[in-house]
Amino acid sequence: LVERLLGGDAAALARLLSHVERGDALGEAAVDRLYADTGRAHIVGITGPPGAGKSTLTNALIGAFRARDRRVGVVAIDPSSPIAGGAALGDRIRMGEWHADPGVFVRSMAARGHPGGLAPAAADAIHLLDAAGFDPILIETVGVGQGEIAVAGASHTVIVVQGPGFGDGVQALKAGLLEIADVLAVNKADQPGAAEVARLLRDELGAFHVGGRTPPVLLVSAIAGDGVEQLAGEIGAHLAHLRDTGGLAERQRQIAGADVLARVDAVLRGRLGGQSGWGGTADELLREVAVRTTSPAAAAAVLLGRLAQ
Amino acid sequence: LVERLLGGDAAALARLLSHVERGDALGEAAVDRLYADTGRAHIVGITGPPGAGKSTLTNALIGAFRARDRRVGVVAIDPSSPIAGGAALGDRIRMGEWHADPGVFVRSMAARGHPGGLAPAAADAIHLLDAAGFDPILIETVGVGQGEIAVAGASHTVIVVQGPGFGDGVQALKAGLLEIADVLAVNKADQPGAAEVARLLRDELGAFHVGGRTPPVLLVSAIAGDGVEQLAGEIGAHLAHLRDTGGLAERQRQIAGADVLARVDAVLRGRLGGQSGWGGTADELLREVAVRTTSPAAAAAVLLGRLAQ
Repeated sequence: LVERLLGGDAAALARLLSHVERGDALGEAAVDRLYADTGRAHIVGITGPPGAGKSTLTNALIGAFRARDRRVGVVAIDPSSPIAGGAALGDRIRMGEWHADPGVFVRSMAARGHPGGLAPAAADAIHLLDAAGFDPILIETVGVGQGEIAVAGASHTVIVVQGPGFGDGVQALKAGLLEIADVLAVNKADQPGAAEVARLLRDELGAFHVGGRTPPVLLVSAIAGDGVEQLAGEIGAHLAHLRDTGGLAERQRQIAGADVLARVDAVLRGRLGGQSGWGGTADELLREVAVRTTSPAAAAAVLLGRLAQ
Repeated sequence: LVERLLGGDAAALARLLSHVERGDALGEAAVDRLYADTGRAHIVGITGPPGAGKSTLTNALIGAFRARDRRVGVVAIDPSSPIAGGAALGDRIRMGEWHADPGVFVRSMAARGHPGGLAPAAADAIHLLDAAGFDPILIETVGVGQGEIAVAGASHTVIVVQGPGFGDGVQALKAGLLEIADVLAVNKADQPGAAEVARLLRDELGAFHVGGRTPPVLLVSAIAGDGVEQLAGEIGAHLAHLRDTGGLAERQRQIAGADVLARVDAVLRGRLGGQSGWGGTADELLREVAVRTTSPAAAAAVLLGRLAQ
């Protein structure tokens, strides 16, 4: 499957993605083998409050990158509850228009329950698309809250999408999305209030980013296609900026660190629920914290000391 | 300050809370010394979608517990952006009615940026209130998204608050709040739709919790005070259930584990942004992941092996 994926076989990619989503040994072994062939794709996170039109804009961006002859990978991360199920179904259908185009690969993943970062399965999906030659890879969060910061930690370039209403703008401020934005897109620019939201965001960003690069704020209409070309250009310009300033290597290191940390977290969290804890003497350490003979900070210091060995 | 806090001095508690919020050495040393005096309070998380009336219900619960002569601590966690600032100010003012009552201590904390769990500062605030003899301690998330799962991980009993509209119910399903609920409160029960939301939630919970305890769904009106007494009763009943089934020790261990893990995460995340990474050979390991000579899973396995030593 690994050889076929590297040879451009979409069916092999789809099968490996299913293994990775299940978190089984075959998926893990495949990513381990492919990982040396990754690191070439530009990873672009697309985030913003619910209702801002992220999926529609992602769809429009696919078109803009296809027009530049780029092969585009998309990972749509749905943090919905397993109870509610298929909340992202509408989005999957919407992006289905690319189904017949081998230059576009869209995958939705249910990736809740890893608050510490992007779920390892989602990170592995990005690695698989990267190894298969897709570039850029767009990562989009579907549904409510949560995944934004994790997406930012996994991306070279973060697009924050806003709706035209003042309420949406304030919501983004509240949710801390401005801090993570490399490019801002005010969507539905044909609706009233969009220009005002853009002005508000420019003011806030100007105050926040004193010195250094201030993220551009673009007015776009994903449905009409207005401003999408310019947005694709700004995405490329941000990557060039990272390359020019030496920031790219630093982002690669941060992405790698977040990836590793999310995997460590996922294992630790899994063990926290079970009878056996972190294993070995770490288990005993946690028991001591629970019965108040060791403080949480002291226990954390012991564990951090071991990590740094 | 530690002696004065244990002696019931509210000013000492307030000063130590400020140290803990700044994350300085004095705060950390104080919690380390006080930690042996904690573990007695019933920690109750109050969460739910924005607009469900969490703050009003928290306020009503304070009254119900005061009527039972309990000393009530409240930690309101505001995950808002540092740019937006004082989003929780309205709530702080609302709970100000208890200002003259020494049996109530309310503290708001800006605690964004720790997606891996409750921020160590918030966990420390709980430890301080616990050592100062407050019981129960109510933890409430303010503002949008994010902190719910972290609050659940720090609590013995989790109250999920719903609004009366069908939209709110669906939002809770989507956000995965039902899985973490020990008690559900459908607030604004005087408004149309509340009974229907309660019925929907009972159906969903019945299907989800096959065998074992099914979380009760209560209709409450925090403003009118209806159902609040019963909710306080169910909170106590859940603690009794944990004691009877041996689940309390397990929750204590999970809370301790989440607390330690959040501290480890906070340090690691802080280092990820800097020039120096995790320290020692771990730094080298991350560099190898960034340049693709080691895979993220292999690096995580090395670090987990060290933790288990």
